[in-house]
Formats: sequence, structure tokens, C-alpha cells
Amino acid sequence: MPENVPDPPVDADLAVSHGVDVVSIARIADLLAEFGDSFRDRVFTPDEQAYCESQGTPQQHYAARWAAKEAFLKSLSDPSPSVPTAAIEIERRADGPRLSLAPAAADALAATLDERGVSPEAADTAVSLSHDLTAGYAVGSVTVVSTASRHD
Amino acid sequence: MPENVPDPPVDADLAVSHGVDVVSIARIADLLAEFGDSFRDRVFTPDEQAYCESQGTPQQHYAARWAAKEAFLKSLSDPSPSVPTAAIEIERRADGPRLSLAPAAADALAATLDERGVSPEAADTAVSLSHDLTAGYAVGSVTVVSTASRHD
Amino acid sequence: MPENVPDPPVDADLAVSHGVDVVSIARIADLLAEFGDSFRDRVFTPDEQAYCESQGTPQQHYAARWAAKEAFLKSLSDPSPSVPTAAIEIERRADGPRLSLAPAAADALAATLDERGVSPEAADTAVSLSHDLTAGYAVGSVTVVSTASRHD
Repeated sequence: MPENVPDPPVDADLAVSHGVDVVSIARIADLLAEFGDSFRDRVFTPDEQAYCESQGTPQQHYAARWAAKEAFLKSLSDPSPSVPTAAIEIERRADGPRLSLAPAAADALAATLDERGVSPEAADTAVSLSHDLTAGYAVGSVTVVSTASRHD
Repeated sequence: MPENVPDPPVDADLAVSHGVDVVSIARIADLLAEFGDSFRDRVFTPDEQAYCESQGTPQQHYAARWAAKEAFLKSLSDPSPSVPTAAIEIERRADGPRLSLAPAAADALAATLDERGVSPEAADTAVSLSHDLTAGYAVGSVTVVSTASRHD
Repeated sequence: MPENVPDPPVDADLAVSHGVDVVSIARIADLLAEFGDSFRDRVFTPDEQAYCESQGTPQQHYAARWAAKEAFLKSLSDPSPSVPTAAIEIERRADGPRLSLAPAAADALAATLDERGVSPEAADTAVSLSHDLTAGYAVGSVTVVSTASRHD
């Protein structure tokens, strides 16, 4: 038997999950004004806060991150309040924003994927955010695609 | 020849379709005020109506469902007006919203997938909705991913 | 050995990238009023302009296309300003909007995919746009899914 005999063929089952969230920038500005650092620290990581505070109008950047975190939670099959919002970081990278998940959030995503027979390595996640100060709102969107390999 | 001889290997072609829709909550509130039950019954299923009416501000929940239904229609390759809006139900489930399609809508999705050589079983669909009463709008988003199996 | 001996089995790695953008219709209307044709020609193709100008309220159609172009740029791993906006056309087709990419934009997408070991042929792209004149904003969304074939 040749060494490179094929494994059983793989037939890919695809799965997609998706979350979108819109938020009024004014609503986030009100929360920032009313609760200040206690709100900031509960919802945003130090890196996120440093970035938002470095901007001319921090509230719209906070709002976009809030929306993206909500969108991530919506992409979970169990949108449990047990995932602290600050466990979901929107990391700024040269090639665009990425989700950087602390263990509580990563475990929740792994549990969602596990229900579908998918390992976290077989999934890919994209996040996008947008804000428009004139219109007064921000949007976050998260898409997760994965294959559940079915060996016949 | 062994019984478990592999089938020809499968090489997956991926396809994605996607729809997003934004709608002013005030516009839906106006339609509800002007047309009442005739609008409700034409656009929303009994379960959707029961949920929306049980909420403090029904119009924003109706608006989010309207947007999600429009997003589904945009994900079809033939966004035919022959699909009654009430055939697209946004079902509330413990693991988040799901599209529950009556035959007219399911057939339209199957026709879109068939054009790409995909069976409905090889596709997965995700829906997400969001509303912000302060900002005054709702958003719905639908993503469909599928594999078109190519046997070499 | 039979002729139809399978190739090595293919195990699909999935990748997704995604961009969403929201824009105030008033902001685009202001740019149109202030810069007129120089703005139109820099950002929109002749076909896009012809379509938008044929509509009752061109500004909302320009705004939706602006948002969709921004969403495409966000889906790239290198959202380089070197891609002229007019190189990304939102083509109107019977089966919905499609991205029609001039070489500068197609090359940028190919470069993004290449970083992931994906050929452009193995990727599929979807675009969706929406606008609501009452709410005053437009949204564009782009999703790219691809397989990176891994031969074991």
C-alpha cells in the first residue's frame, strides 16, 4: 500500500454565526459622563481606553467598541451575561481590528463551537466597526465561520 | 476492495451571500399607526406579533424584525416580491434569533442555492438584529454560507 | 490502479473577512454640494453616477455606495489608501449588488487572500447596502469567505 494513501475523504459542513449591534453614541456618552471610570473599567480594557482617550471624540470610539463587543456576544449560542465585556478586546492591528479574547470569552466561543462539533482551530472570526458622529451612532459586526469535518 | 473505500475526495467551493438592512423606527411606528392590524398581519407572524406587543416599546422590535426580513430577501439571488414577508419568521430561541422559513421563503432560498449547485442541507444561515431607540433605527443582517461540493 | 483514484484528500481551512460601514447621508450630501463633479468622479464610476443621478434623492444612493466601498476597504488586510475608491464598483445586477473590482482593487484583494494562502478563485465575496432617508444614514457591508486548501 503506498504511503500516501489518502485518509478518508473530508466532507465539510459549514457553519456561520453572526452578530450585529447598533448603538447611539449619545447613550454611551451619557454612561461615560454618569459612571466615568467604573463604567470604563468594567467594559473596556486598558488598551482600549488608552486608544479611545487619545482620540478627539472618545465617545464615538467607545461606542464602536461597545457595539462590537455586543455583536460578539450575539454570535454566541449562549449569550450568557457571565462573559465580562472587558474579556472581549477589540485589538487594533495594522491589518485591521481583531478580536482578542480573554479566557472567559474564549471559553464561551469554544463552547458555542463545540456544540456544533467544531474545534476553535477550525473557525475563523472577523470583526468590523464603524461610527459616524454626524449620524450619531456606531455599528459593530462579528462573523464566525467554521467547518465541522465529517469523516464518512 | 474494502468496504470503507473513500469516495472521491471533496473539494469545497465556498459561497457566501449577505444582506443588511437599516430602518427608521419612526417609519415603522407610522406604518403601525396608519395601517394597524392589516400591516401587522401582512408582515409579521402571530408569534412575532405576540413578542413585540409584550414589549414596552413594540415599534422598535417590529422595526428590527422588518430589517431582518429585508436582509433575508437581499440575500436571495432573486429578491422576488413573491415571497410574503410573513413567510420569513425571526424565531426567538435560547441560543439567539433564527430564521424560520415557511415554504414560500424556504423555496426561494433553495432556488438561490440551487443556482450555485448547493443543496439547502449544505448551507448555514445566521441572522442578527439590533435596535437603538435613542438613535431611532434598527438593523438586520443575514449571512448564508455554503459549500458546493465538486467531485473531481 | 484505477484511473479515478482519489487525489489526496482536501481538508478545508476556512477564512472570513468582513467590513461594515455606516455613513450619514447628510455628510455625503454636503460633499456633493461642496465638491460636485470632482468628488463624484474621484469616488464613483460612471455607471454608479448614472444610477444615482437617475434617482429621486441621489444623495442616499451615493451614501450607500460610499459605505459599501469603505466596507470593502475594511475587509482588506492592508486597508491601503492606494486603492482608488472608484476602483471599487457596486454593480447593480438582477440578482442583487455585486462588487466589480478594477485592477487596483482586485490586486489588493488578491494580496489579502494570498497572505492566507488562498487564490482569488477560492474566495467568494458578498456585498449588501441599505439606506433610510428618514433615519438619515446608509450602511454597507462586505463579507469574504475562502478556503485555504491544505493537502495532507
